[in-house]
Amino acid sequence: DRIDAPYELAYRNNGTSSPARPHTHNALEIYLTMSDLPDVLLDDTVSSVSKGSLIIIPPHHVHQLFNQKLTIYERYVLNINSDWLYTVLGAGSGLMPYADPAFSPAILRLSPTGLTGLCSQLDHYLQLHPQPSLSAYADFFSLLSILDSRIQHGLQASSTGQRSISQSQKNINEVMAFINRHLTEPLTLESIAAEFYLNKDYLGRLFKEHTHATIGHYISVQRANLAQTMLAEGRTVTEVQELLGFSSYAYFFKFFKKMTGISPSQYRKDNTMPLSHSPSP
Amino acid sequence: DRIDAPYELAYRNNGTSSPARPHTHNALEIYLTMSDLPDVLLDDTVSSVSKGSLIIIPPHHVHQLFNQKLTIYERYVLNINSDWLYTVLGAGSGLMPYADPAFSPAILRLSPTGLTGLCSQLDHYLQLHPQPSLSAYADFFSLLSILDSRIQHGLQASSTGQRSISQSQKNINEVMAFINRHLTEPLTLESIAAEFYLNKDYLGRLFKEHTHATIGHYISVQRANLAQTMLAEGRTVTEVQELLGFSSYAYFFKFFKKMTGISPSQYRKDNTMPLSHSPSP
Repeated sequence: DRIDAPYELAYRNNGTSSPARPHTHNALEIYLTMSDLPDVLLDDTVSSVSKGSLIIIPPHHVHQLFNQKLTIYERYVLNINSDWLYTVLGAGSGLMPYADPAFSPAILRLSPTGLTGLCSQLDHYLQLHPQPSLSAYADFFSLLSILDSRIQHGLQASSTGQRSISQSQKNINEVMAFINRHLTEPLTLESIAAEFYLNKDYLGRLFKEHTHATIGHYISVQRANLAQTMLAEGRTVTEVQELLGFSSYAYFFKFFKKMTGISPSQYRKDNTMPLSHSPSP
Repeated sequence: DRIDAPYELAYRNNGTSSPARPHTHNALEIYLTMSDLPDVLLDDTVSSVSKGSLIIIPPHHVHQLFNQKLTIYERYVLNINSDWLYTVLGAGSGLMPYADPAFSPAILRLSPTGLTGLCSQLDHYLQLHPQPSLSAYADFFSLLSILDSRIQHGLQASSTGQRSISQSQKNINEVMAFINRHLTEPLTLESIAAEFYLNKDYLGRLFKEHTHATIGHYISVQRANLAQTMLAEGRTVTEVQELLGFSSYAYFFKFFKKMTGISPSQYRKDNTMPLSHSPSP
């Protein structure tokens, strides 16, 4: 998914009758969970996350936050377009390091006091600023500054003990880790089930239970991610097509366009660093 | 001149032993003058400006602020890169309309109380934020919000009575207006002097007295400006070269590169709006 708005802060309080499938954005996403969530997928780990947690998802990391069907799912969501943020803060500023795709997703626990304080600041912003304005930007960066100090403090304290992983989640996590190690090889539900000595229908059902998506969908999302990384590193479209085992350019083009919204060559053009030019004499 | 930093706020308090010649930036520039200035050039008008004035200079407008040699010239200067600002605020936000090159420069008078308040806020920012940080961005947008309300209020009140124009400045202003009407025609000191029934040496001296530059420099700056506008509107490099009366591409290329730092074709590429594509089916 592409997000074009600079940033969006929202409070949501609704059931998830049809949850989003695991997906990625060109955005830093920060969730403040106000409900206990049984299945939170980040990269290759599904876990349950207790309410009052900050979930930090750097751009281009697969994720899905999911509550039981027809159960209230209360959270604050902040999306920040990473191109926008990069432009605003300038190259190499070192600010908000978790806005870099090289950063891993993190789950941080807030103290009850910290949680109450943060909620009231988020509510304050949402009430004051229904429309963009210069003072909205001022308050937005003030909010970012508060969030950032919480996050940096939480990361140093490594208070990441809030994910708990059930036995069936552990199985799924092993499957996802296997998939991520073998993205450039042929992968089918059958071959993965065989690898784990599992019945393929059982595996498919278990995977769907925790992610509301098929294994095939997860593989596609991660392959599209890998393709984007390879293109940004400067590999040619043909190289990437072959490395990822696509039998034809047309098939790879169609796949990439569907997953990212743009063509592989356009993505490469937009995301590769230009070769540095020697200064003109 | 190209400005690459997002923004820069500075307090300066020094004589102008060698003033900058009339010039343009890709930046919105806002001055708060703390000294009386005898010669302030904006577009095609030189005037004196009393201290305690806000001078708003939209991107790509020729300007020069000049005090007597060896006299203290005290001012706050805020530069905001216009590409950066456009990205931050988003297209068509309507915020800070004077950041658009289509806006004319303006001089606003602050009340003594308003001046004191604004100075203390500028000083506060400068003391608190020697380095970029998220709270610096917060305070920067807060400062912009304050400045903006002052500017919008001042523009509505049309309190622009603070420029006073001497007789010799009036003569120079007529000359500049003439130049700007005839940028696509051959212009020389001789032909301009003849137009105004003036001795060319006298005209040259008078022009230099108020702008610290030659008429030739002023013509070049305005021709480069016009060339940029024409290229941004989509005219080809050859069309612009011919419209501006350059006898060869090589001569135009050299001129444009020297004035803007980049080649005409690169400028055109960076600044023309792409043709809108029909959405893919």
